[in-house]
Amino acid sequence: MKELHPALTLKYLGINTYKEPIIYMRSDCHICKSEGFDAQARVRVSLNNRSIVATLNTIDSNLLSDNQASLSEYAWKLLSAKEGDPISVSHPKPLDSLSYIRSKIYGHELKAEETKHIIDDLVAGQLSDINIAMYIAASAGAKLSKKEVFDLTKAMVDSGQRLTWDAPCVVDKHCVGGLPGNRTTPIIVSIVAAFGLMIPKTSSRAITSPAGTADTMEVFTSVDLDIPTMRRVVEQENGCLVWGGSMALSPADDLLIRIERTANIDSEEQMVASILSKKIAAGATHLLIDMPIGTTAKIRSIAHAEYLKKLLKSIAKEFGIETKVIFSDGSQPIGRGIGPGLEALDILAVLNRNPNAPQDLREHALALAGQVIEFSPNITHGSGIKIATDILDSGRAFAKFQAICNAQGGMREIPQASFTHTIESKKSGIIVNIDNRQIARVAKLAGAPKSKSAGVELLVPLHSVVRKSQPLFKLYAETRGELNYALDFLKQGHEIFQIEVGA
Amino acid sequence: MKELHPALTLKYLGINTYKEPIIYMRSDCHICKSEGFDAQARVRVSLNNRSIVATLNTIDSNLLSDNQASLSEYAWKLLSAKEGDPISVSHPKPLDSLSYIRSKIYGHELKAEETKHIIDDLVAGQLSDINIAMYIAASAGAKLSKKEVFDLTKAMVDSGQRLTWDAPCVVDKHCVGGLPGNRTTPIIVSIVAAFGLMIPKTSSRAITSPAGTADTMEVFTSVDLDIPTMRRVVEQENGCLVWGGSMALSPADDLLIRIERTANIDSEEQMVASILSKKIAAGATHLLIDMPIGTTAKIRSIAHAEYLKKLLKSIAKEFGIETKVIFSDGSQPIGRGIGPGLEALDILAVLNRNPNAPQDLREHALALAGQVIEFSPNITHGSGIKIATDILDSGRAFAKFQAICNAQGGMREIPQASFTHTIESKKSGIIVNIDNRQIARVAKLAGAPKSKSAGVELLVPLHSVVRKSQPLFKLYAETRGELNYALDFLKQGHEIFQIEVGA
Repeated sequence: MKELHPALTLKYLGINTYKEPIIYMRSDCHICKSEGFDAQARVRVSLNNRSIVATLNTIDSNLLSDNQASLSEYAWKLLSAKEGDPISVSHPKPLDSLSYIRSKIYGHELKAEETKHIIDDLVAGQLSDINIAMYIAASAGAKLSKKEVFDLTKAMVDSGQRLTWDAPCVVDKHCVGGLPGNRTTPIIVSIVAAFGLMIPKTSSRAITSPAGTADTMEVFTSVDLDIPTMRRVVEQENGCLVWGGSMALSPADDLLIRIERTANIDSEEQMVASILSKKIAAGATHLLIDMPIGTTAKIRSIAHAEYLKKLLKSIAKEFGIETKVIFSDGSQPIGRGIGPGLEALDILAVLNRNPNAPQDLREHALALAGQVIEFSPNITHGSGIKIATDILDSGRAFAKFQAICNAQGGMREIPQASFTHTIESKKSGIIVNIDNRQIARVAKLAGAPKSKSAGVELLVPLHSVVRKSQPLFKLYAETRGELNYALDFLKQGHEIFQIEVGA
Repeated sequence: MKELHPALTLKYLGINTYKEPIIYMRSDCHICKSEGFDAQARVRVSLNNRSIVATLNTIDSNLLSDNQASLSEYAWKLLSAKEGDPISVSHPKPLDSLSYIRSKIYGHELKAEETKHIIDDLVAGQLSDINIAMYIAASAGAKLSKKEVFDLTKAMVDSGQRLTWDAPCVVDKHCVGGLPGNRTTPIIVSIVAAFGLMIPKTSSRAITSPAGTADTMEVFTSVDLDIPTMRRVVEQENGCLVWGGSMALSPADDLLIRIERTANIDSEEQMVASILSKKIAAGATHLLIDMPIGTTAKIRSIAHAEYLKKLLKSIAKEFGIETKVIFSDGSQPIGRGIGPGLEALDILAVLNRNPNAPQDLREHALALAGQVIEFSPNITHGSGIKIATDILDSGRAFAKFQAICNAQGGMREIPQASFTHTIESKKSGIIVNIDNRQIARVAKLAGAPKSKSAGVELLVPLHSVVRKSQPLFKLYAETRGELNYALDFLKQGHEIFQIEVGA
């Protein structure tokens, strides 16, 4: 269709819809009137040589003047928009992917190219939240065949960058549904890289938790490396510890997870495609998966874990990836610190063999590192953990960690929080439960992960006997206001520790 | 949880998200910080004694000041908000209905009370678009059992008002997937009410079309009656022609249709619940369904029509409603006018027996009215159409129509458009196709349905032989600007008539 309308000029309004592209236009502007656009219409928005499909919100006030339009933060970023830029708006072409989503809703098995179309349109910002939600609902509940899981994984890999490495064995590890403080990755990478296996590790930042591995690593060094820099670090040190977000590995994954999360849908098939697509894109040949099982963890039963394990291994095999899945204890946090800086202190204590280092973190990291080392063709089954322990205890792991940090831009001091407050037990008794979700909440209220030194330090483990007034945990914050947010929350009666009196 | 935060004050921004409740809050406001709310969080918003769940969009600019928040138009209306009102914002309680939607996604048959929970939360504004989309996707594609369709219909009826009438036979009619101009309802109601059957007709306004029956009736008289007034009209005249929107009959229906429409999902089972819930809520005992079948109509094949007919009849029967389904020709528009005022002229011409009245509209209305009349226990099969014809030709139908309009508040003059333009054929030939969607588009660009007199008048029917420069259709608009929008669209090469030269 010929473009007949004069362009609208962008005004910045700073409305953050998370990852939903929204365009704001006056309902009485010439484009809405002539094109017949109403609120909730899907429209094509073009700027320079970029173009996205956005949902229209109309403006019935003077927020915008006659020839102005605005974009949500996400759309603004997708189009690299600047204040005053001229945009053109038109009807979007009908999307084939919507027919394929309908086909899936009606119970048909999708062809590889149909799944690819859906994922490509997803990544290109063509699908609305409603479209994506319907695709997820139509796929969840064991409604994807094994072939469809394979096709989905491949489509997700193909939607982004894919790294290749000049090594016969490229190892990776992943934890399904993290526990607070379960920050084994920096320790494992240091041990494995020191051992001599290539482990180009990309990690995520926190989405809803008080810290992701990338947030914690950022306490030590730069993590937002570009691909050439990351490659240089890995070639030099066998490993790296970087943020995956800037690499565009399986970009479809984040977009699906965003919708799954709001609806609390965990589809096993999509989870498998999600995990494997990132690892395949990162170039892994061998993959260790840590699967904590516990009532407040993501995986709550052995049966569920077994199903997931089988599916993961079988799809990974089709991509030529050897996979080991380890079931672990998901009943309580690991380590003492929750929050980037406090977790960094735990990691540092383990790496430099501090006798006060949290033993659970050390042991869990050694067990996993041992399994990774056994991917090496020369290592016999069962001997990995001893090798890992030797590397850690000899100081070689710490040296490797420092070398990786230096290669990534230099090692930093761990910041200290200015405001702290210790919470004491109100009674004597036994700690019978620790609420992982409440810990995460308090750590976030105190400022984590944005405030690096903020968070929670646990002072007693599950099943401890405590006496009245014994310190249970300590809050850390960078401002008094944030400390008070966390304290107010606790004053409202939210309990982290469940203590039972006597027995 | 105790409310610890000072309230935020509402500022009106006039952002129309259609029916999605959105709250706008500064990302650095004390509530977002202390509660840990990020963009896309679902939050409970309370004002006076009302409370809704809205999706959070955060503001990173000076659109709002420190203690201000805003709401989308829909949320603003749900809460009856006024500028400066103080709102409180908190975490929403977990919704059981989300578990039931997940259960449906995982392929389980829902219990009656589970479906009811979902529909109640939908109507109470508790579900996000993503939740609703997932529920629709999980239900579409023949995934609802007959029992679930019954339960859904009942839950939708129970979610709103329900009318009862003091008559043994209360008739209604419905058209599935309307054709442009197929405005038989006012004629049928007039005939049937004049015959003596009770027909309390509620109709909808246009959603995506250039006119709904309520828009067209509004040309003649007031249609937004409250229930007591409607009841008085029906008791006095046996019938009424009002807008159903203000009656809150099956309010869940509009909310589901909104999401289905954006994704172009037509689930037969949900369509049946949608149609029947409105009719049951309106108190019908006998229902005639007009189902136009054609390549550009909603129902495109006989097989599809047969399936829908069977399901409609069987569910209606469980509610004690006798249902007849009539298949009709959906290959071209009915009548000449498209747009509220132009359709009103067609209706008036048929009712007052103008010899130039569109015969297709007259015949279709008589056929349907005859079928409705045969619901009457004394009328033998096949004699209804003759009775209907007698009532129309004797002037009794027109008298009844005038009486209904007067009872609804008085009969109005039909407005005339100030700007018209006749489009002539560019060549001689035969009209082999009329594009219903393009007609609707042009009528809307010309201003319908908001501008009552705007629209399109068709001057030649399908299969006509036309000569070059013969008038094909006429555009009507209330402003020159709107006329130009429609003309610009046509100049871009969009063709309403497909004309083939010679044979």
